[in-house]
Amino acid sequence: MTACEARSLEHLEVIGREESLRLLEAHGVGRLGANAHCHPVVYPVNYTIVDGAIVFRTRKGGDLDQATGNTIVAFEIDSADFTYHEGWSVMVVGRSSHVCGTGVLDVCEAAQRLLPWAGHERSVIVRIEFDEVSGRRISHRAD
Amino acid sequence: MTACEARSLEHLEVIGREESLRLLEAHGVGRLGANAHCHPVVYPVNYTIVDGAIVFRTRKGGDLDQATGNTIVAFEIDSADFTYHEGWSVMVVGRSSHVCGTGVLDVCEAAQRLLPWAGHERSVIVRIEFDEVSGRRISHRAD
Repeated sequence: MTACEARSLEHLEVIGREESLRLLEAHGVGRLGANAHCHPVVYPVNYTIVDGAIVFRTRKGGDLDQATGNTIVAFEIDSADFTYHEGWSVMVVGRSSHVCGTGVLDVCEAAQRLLPWAGHERSVIVRIEFDEVSGRRISHRAD
Repeated sequence: MTACEARSLEHLEVIGREESLRLLEAHGVGRLGANAHCHPVVYPVNYTIVDGAIVFRTRKGGDLDQATGNTIVAFEIDSADFTYHEGWSVMVVGRSSHVCGTGVLDVCEAAQRLLPWAGHERSVIVRIEFDEVSGRRISHRAD
């Protein structure tokens, strides 16, 4: 079956919670979806997982800082195969907050290991605690 | 300079409007940021550009359908290099609407060419008209 023929079929399947969480653990770059300046925004960030929560660093005073203080956000990861028009994505919805201080030292220590790609002037540590996670996959090849 | 040393520097630069628009024209998969069910959502879609607007197809009655009817949304594309911890992203903010009928035949015809990766049952054509576009790049290598 060619990729073109395959596209005429429905090939969207659900990725279960456990696999979605494994993909989140294994991936390193995702996109935060939030609201800033009264409209939606989407920003890519490099992240890690600490105690089941998404953690990343951002610049104090920047859009991501302002959009992630104690509010509900979305966080998405994906992978696309342009040759076969296949891919997968996982999205979580959870509460983001800015953390540091006693009691969250594990998060801070992990965040210190999480070097921001854009440089070290990213002093705000954002944590997204979530329960809601969903994933989906497009595949055109036979099992 | 190793990638590790380079990360200690600030390497975030702005991508200008013209280059951002060229990247949008050349790319094929992006992420829509919107609000659904009273919280932010981020969904990947394959898209094309028609008369300067982003166009993609989605399933009638789905989350993307409900989140894109005559409202302000964000649309983001990016590329990440995990070896060098480099990458770029472009985000637009604009008004999304559902289109079809006389007067927008060019959009519909382009959308017919835009085969949904997930299958053909994507009858809603979404167009995002935008003026606001911003891009940024992280690069650690010398010019």
